[in-house]
Amino acid sequence: MLTAADVAAARERIRGHIRTTPLVQADPAECRADPAATVWFKLEHLQHTGSFKARGAYNRILTAAADGHLTDAGVVAASGGNAGLAVAHAAARQGVPARVHVPETAPAVKQAKLAELGATVVATGTKYADAYDAATTDIAETGALFCHAYDQPEICAGQGTLGAELLDQTGGVDTILVAVGGGGLLAGIAAAAEGRAHVVGVEPATIPTLHTALAEGGPVAVDVSGVAADALGATRIGEIAHAVATRTGVTSVLVDDADIVAARTLLWQKFRLVVEHGTAAALAALLSGAYRPAAGERVAVVLCGANTDPSDLA
Amino acid sequence: MLTAADVAAARERIRGHIRTTPLVQADPAECRADPAATVWFKLEHLQHTGSFKARGAYNRILTAAADGHLTDAGVVAASGGNAGLAVAHAAARQGVPARVHVPETAPAVKQAKLAELGATVVATGTKYADAYDAATTDIAETGALFCHAYDQPEICAGQGTLGAELLDQTGGVDTILVAVGGGGLLAGIAAAAEGRAHVVGVEPATIPTLHTALAEGGPVAVDVSGVAADALGATRIGEIAHAVATRTGVTSVLVDDADIVAARTLLWQKFRLVVEHGTAAALAALLSGAYRPAAGERVAVVLCGANTDPSDLA
Ligand SMILES: Cc1ncc(COP(=O)(O)O)c(C=O)c1O
Ligand SMILES: Cc1ncc(COP(=O)(O)O)c(C=O)c1O
Repeated sequence: MLTAADVAAARERIRGHIRTTPLVQADPAECRADPAATVWFKLEHLQHTGSFKARGAYNRILTAAADGHLTDAGVVAASGGNAGLAVAHAAARQGVPARVHVPETAPAVKQAKLAELGATVVATGTKYADAYDAATTDIAETGALFCHAYDQPEICAGQGTLGAELLDQTGGVDTILVAVGGGGLLAGIAAAAEGRAHVVGVEPATIPTLHTALAEGGPVAVDVSGVAADALGATRIGEIAHAVATRTGVTSVLVDDADIVAARTLLWQKFRLVVEHGTAAALAALLSGAYRPAAGERVAVVLCGANTDPSDLA
Repeated sequence: MLTAADVAAARERIRGHIRTTPLVQADPAECRADPAATVWFKLEHLQHTGSFKARGAYNRILTAAADGHLTDAGVVAASGGNAGLAVAHAAARQGVPARVHVPETAPAVKQAKLAELGATVVATGTKYADAYDAATTDIAETGALFCHAYDQPEICAGQGTLGAELLDQTGGVDTILVAVGGGGLLAGIAAAAEGRAHVVGVEPATIPTLHTALAEGGPVAVDVSGVAADALGATRIGEIAHAVATRTGVTSVLVDDADIVAARTLLWQKFRLVVEHGTAAALAALLSGAYRPAAGERVAVVLCGANTDPSDLA
């Protein structure tokens, strides 16, 4: 059971390894929120490797190191995206090898970035599941440490440090809006904020993993499509995320791709922040009215990734 | 004589009108600084309209309003760039008309941005000097309030609030690196930091307005060229900036265009910050070694503008 104490321990463990990311107050009118609401943006997209995933990766790897489980066999991840980058970064800083399994279809530029961070990229098959299977075989054969993209306690606790940090920085909020893929970020933040703030999971209507799980009483595979599929495209919510969401009273809202695109554009035009589509989903919940804060409500919007091509913002 | 007291008064005046911008600590190794130095980035490019110029514009306009000098004739600026955008924004929020004079050669996209903020754009001649002359005629005929791009006490005091804010946020620094065009930003920050921190003005070697003025004992017109000319391309340093720089012991360093381009690219690749070339000059001073902090030195790098096309960062 993932709790605020796990997150607090993770925070001590990864202190000095990750960046404390800034928090800015935004004019609620510019976010189409009630003018008497308070809106904060947590600029976590400025984290090492451009996303919050560094927090979980460091916590997983430093925990293993402390327990004597980090060996020359190194670490393994299955991810062509932000989770892989984060694991590659943390492994390099700890001086152990990282193998990141990706499908052969993973964009060359992403594979190059992983290699630049010092990881060995292993491409297998055409689907994410093929890369995941290859990672499973890898750890069985080599004894390397597996870093799941979202469904491991240390990963979730690490991501949750973002929530603990923002509660400290704001002095407390009522509501935290957070994008959901496999739910590692959601799980960590909901655990960190349990009893202190209401957490709202925001998903594209085209990838409703949390929404479906809450409706059906457990994780269910969903179809995956849309502009945010590269970051939020897990096919089902993790077990940890489902358990924490249910226990802590997380609620779920859905947003359309058009609202996600508009939110990303607005963040550049009005705030000079460049984020990826998956991240813009959290703000899209405000802009679209999918989540409407009350007058006086203090809302934090988590901006969690910037691994995007900014060309279309010109 | 511009002093820290003027800046403190400006800070009170513009509080609530401008954004408090975040400050982040950067790994000195990632900036090629001594590993035992402390490096801060002041993220002022997240200010309203994408640059620090909002601070000066608000201070100039709110001072005039308090003194009863803000009339229906409105305000006037001569600028195709950030100063014009800032004046347009502040005027719109104060409910007075803004006329922004630009040369006919000003890019259509910049003129459109000004119009979007509610300003009337007046295009005259082919050089900045033509637009400046048209602005001079305008204020003589209409009695509108002139907002200079850098050489007015209220403008400089407003820009200086950035310095006062960063001294508060850091709890004190030894050195502040700041890009210089006409020197309004430099003047304000040097006044705010007088006796508390050393200010280093950073200029492209292709536009050495401060450097030449310090060498020759007064403002001198210089040739203007290079990647940062749109923001830093004043032909000579302002009188206020020269006076404050001399009084407070500001020093000057020059950087090459290649270092500016590299600094802008690094800010995106390693920190996910998008800034314009003029702004990247301040960090280029560290990266190029033009300014080398000592072990233990606390250095703040002012990132002051993001009005840039991010396409080339892809
Ligand atoms: C930028 C970004 N936001 C959100 C998510 C979703 O995170 P989680 O899978 O923990 O729900 C991811 C996952 O890769 C991501 O990269
Ligand atoms: C982004 C940016 N940085 C720096 C400057 C230089 O400011 P100053 O003219 O006050 O020296 C400007 C001026 O337009 C600017 O727009």
